Amino acid sequence: MVAGNAVQTTSLGEEIVRRINLLGAISEEAGKLTRIYLSKELREAADLILGWMREAGMSAHLDAIGNVCGRYEGEGPGAPCLMLGSHYDTVRDAGKWDGPLGVITAIACVADLNRRGRRLPFAIEVVGFADEEGVRFASTLLGSRALAGTFDKSVLNTRDRDGVSMRDALITFGLDPDHIGAAARTRRELIAYLELHIEQGPVLETQNLPVGVVTAIAGATRLAARLTGMAGHAGTVPMALRRDALAGAAECIGAIEQFCRTDEGGLVGTVGYIQAKPGATNVIPGEVSFTIDMRAPIDMHRKRAVAEIVPQIEAIAERRQLVLQLDVTHENGTAPCAPWLKEQIAQAIGVEGFSVFELPSGAGHDGMAMIDIADVGMIFVRCRGGISHHPDEHVELADAEAGARVLLRVIENFRPWEGKSSPQVTG
Amino acid sequence: MVAGNAVQTTSLGEEIVRRINLLGAISEEAGKLTRIYLSKELREAADLILGWMREAGMSAHLDAIGNVCGRYEGEGPGAPCLMLGSHYDTVRDAGKWDGPLGVITAIACVADLNRRGRRLPFAIEVVGFADEEGVRFASTLLGSRALAGTFDKSVLNTRDRDGVSMRDALITFGLDPDHIGAAARTRRELIAYLELHIEQGPVLETQNLPVGVVTAIAGATRLAARLTGMAGHAGTVPMALRRDALAGAAECIGAIEQFCRTDEGGLVGTVGYIQAKPGATNVIPGEVSFTIDMRAPIDMHRKRAVAEIVPQIEAIAERRQLVLQLDVTHENGTAPCAPWLKEQIAQAIGVEGFSVFELPSGAGHDGMAMIDIADVGMIFVRCRGGISHHPDEHVELADAEAGARVLLRVIENFRPWEGKSSPQVTG
Repeated sequence: MVAGNAVQTTSLGEEIVRRINLLGAISEEAGKLTRIYLSKELREAADLILGWMREAGMSAHLDAIGNVCGRYEGEGPGAPCLMLGSHYDTVRDAGKWDGPLGVITAIACVADLNRRGRRLPFAIEVVGFADEEGVRFASTLLGSRALAGTFDKSVLNTRDRDGVSMRDALITFGLDPDHIGAAARTRRELIAYLELHIEQGPVLETQNLPVGVVTAIAGATRLAARLTGMAGHAGTVPMALRRDALAGAAECIGAIEQFCRTDEGGLVGTVGYIQAKPGATNVIPGEVSFTIDMRAPIDMHRKRAVAEIVPQIEAIAERRQLVLQLDVTHENGTAPCAPWLKEQIAQAIGVEGFSVFELPSGAGHDGMAMIDIADVGMIFVRCRGGISHHPDEHVELADAEAGARVLLRVIENFRPWEGKSSPQVTG
Repeated sequence: MVAGNAVQTTSLGEEIVRRINLLGAISEEAGKLTRIYLSKELREAADLILGWMREAGMSAHLDAIGNVCGRYEGEGPGAPCLMLGSHYDTVRDAGKWDGPLGVITAIACVADLNRRGRRLPFAIEVVGFADEEGVRFASTLLGSRALAGTFDKSVLNTRDRDGVSMRDALITFGLDPDHIGAAARTRRELIAYLELHIEQGPVLETQNLPVGVVTAIAGATRLAARLTGMAGHAGTVPMALRRDALAGAAECIGAIEQFCRTDEGGLVGTVGYIQAKPGATNVIPGEVSFTIDMRAPIDMHRKRAVAEIVPQIEAIAERRQLVLQLDVTHENGTAPCAPWLKEQIAQAIGVEGFSVFELPSGAGHDGMAMIDIADVGMIFVRCRGGISHHPDEHVELADAEAGARVLLRVIENFRPWEGKSSPQVTG
C-alpha cells in the first residue's frame, strides 16, 4: 500500500517510529510508561520535542501551561496558522502511541517541507498538549483548554494523590500559575485545528484500513463517588449489622456494568479507579471512593443514561445505610468534526491510494477543547487489536507511514477556507 | 460495681487509661492511629513499654522478633512463668485499645504486686507482641509465632506495599533476621498464657457486663485473590468485548457477601483490601487484587464455606475470561481456651462481684499461636458499641478498672496446675 516513491516513504515512517521509542522511554516508572502532567519526566519530554521542532525549522517554546509550541512561518510572516497537534502526557502504564504519534507525525511533516524549502500561504503550528489524559488532577484537557482560553482556574487548587496542588506543581515545573492566561490563542490566529491520533478501538482493523476520517468526538461524563459506611473488625461484626462501603461499591459497579451492557446505543461505562479505606485484610471498609466514566456517541443518550444510573446508585447507598457523595467532575459534549476539513482529509486519503472510511471517536481528544476557537478535523491511524492505554498498544510502521503521508498531503493541498462556514479575517 | 476499696481501684484504671492515651499518640499518620510492624513508631512504642515494665519491677528486653518482654521473678529465681500478654501493633486508622489494653493492664497488675512487695510461687512474664494484626506482611501473629517457635522463615522474603522485605525491615528496626529463633520459648518455661483484650464485638454490651470469659478463639481463613483481564481505553472498547478485572472483582465481592449473609452458622466474610490497576478514571482495569477473610465459630463450618466460595469465584473468573490467582495466605483453626484457666478466670470475676458470662472470640488473638506451647485463657473487656479497628473504639474507665481487678485477682489467686490436663515439669 505504500508503494511508489519508496525511499522518502520509508524514511518518514522510520523516523516517526524512532522518535516514538525515544519519547516512550521517558517515564517516571521503571519498566512501564507513565508520564503525568507536570512531572519532571514531562519536562524532559518537552525539551526533547522542542529540540525536534527547532530541528524541523520551527521557532519553538514551552507555553504558560506546559504545552510545547512550534511555528513554521508561511510565505509571509505573521500569517494565521493551520494548527496541528496532539498531547504528550500519558496515562499510567500507558502505550507509547496515544498522543505522541500526532505530535511526532506533525513535526515530521514540517521537517519534510523544511527540507524541501517549501513554504505555504499560511503558517503551520504544531502543539504538543501537556495534559490531555487528566490523570493527575482528575480534570482532562488542561493543555488545550488553556490554549483555547477556557481554562478553569479553580482546577489550580485541585490536589493530586500526594496532596500536591496544581498551583504548586506548576511552580515546581517552572511555570507561573498566575499567568496561564498567556497560553490562550484567539480564533483569528487559527485557520483550523487538525489532529492525527491512533484510533484506540478495533474498527479500522476490522475494515482492513490504515487510516480513517473522524466524524465526531463522543462526549463523556465523569463522576466521582464516595460511599461512607462504618469500619469494623472483620471477625466480630455479624453480616446483618455491617455497613460495608466496599460491598456497597461492588453492587454499584455491578449495576453500572449491567446498565451499559444492556444498552443498545453504544453506551460504555467504566469504573477505573477504586480505593477502600482503611484497606486492611481484617477490617471492614468504612469508606470507598471510585470514579465513573460514561460515554455514548450521542449527547442526549449519554445524559439520559447518567440520569438513570445516578438514582440506582443512590438507592443502593440508601438501602445499605451508606452516605453517598456523588459529583460530576467532567462533562464534555460531543464535538463534531467540520465537514470542510473531513472533505480535505478524505481527498488526501484517496490521493494516497486508500479507501475513505468515516468513523466516530469513542475516546476524547484535545479537539473537544479546540473546537471553541477553531474548526476541528481528525485523522485516525489503525492500532493493533484496538488496544490502547496499555503497554501492548502498537502501530505498524506502514500505518505510521500512511498516516504521515495523508497528513502531509492534507497540508500541501490545503485550501484554507474552502467550504468553511465562517471565513476568518486574515492576519 | 467497683465499690469497696475505692482508692486503689481508681488509681489502677486511671493509670491504664493514661498509658493507653500515651501509646495511642505514637502513630505514623497524623490525626489517626497507625502503628505497623517494624515501623519506627513501633520501635518508639517498644521503648515506652520497656520503660513501664522496668518501672514495675521487671527485667525487660526487646526480643529477636521485636516483642517487648518483661519478667517479674517469683519467690525463687528461674521459676516457670505465668505469661500475660497482648500485642502493641495496630491496624491502619486504628482504635487505641485493641492490643495495648492487655499489655498495659498486665504491667499495671505487676506494678501493683511490686508496690506491695508481693512475690508469688511462680514468675510473671508480660509480653507485648510486635505483630498480631498482620497489616504489613499479610501474615498475622508474627510476634507470638516467633515466641512459640513456629515462625515461618519464608515470610522473611515477603514484601510490604512499598517493596520492602520483612528481612530488610528487621535490619532497619535493629534486629537480625537470621536470629529470630532466639525469640522462641519452650513449653516447660510457661505455666499458662493469659490475655486480656477488648471484645471487639457487641455481646458484653448487650449483656450489660464489663468483662467475660472467652471460650475459644474462632478460626480464620484468609485468601489473596488476583484477577487479570485486559486494560483498555474506557471510551473505545465496547462492553461486550471487555475483560474488566474490577467488574469481575465486584461480582466476587457480591457473591462472598451474599453467601455469608444467608449462612446461619455465624459465618462472616470480608473483603477489606482492593487495588485496581492501572487505576485511572479513563482506563478499564486490567488487574485487580483483593483479600478475603472468612471466619466461623466452628472449624468445619468455616472450611466448608471456603470450599463452597472458591468455586463460585473461579466460575465468575472463567465466565469473564479473567485469569484468577487465589492463594490461602493464612489459616488458623479454632483455639479452645483451657477449662482450668476458664474456671480460675470465672472465679476471679465472681469474687470481684460481676456475673460470669462466657462467650467465643470472633477475632483472632495471639493465643492462637501461643496454644502450641501453653494452655491459653482469655478475659474480654466490654468496648463501646462493639466497635473496633476504628478510631471510635472505646473502653470506659470503669471497665478498664474492672478488667485490671479481675486479672490481678486471677494472678494473686492463681493455682498453677490445678485441673490442668498435662502438668508441667517445674524448673
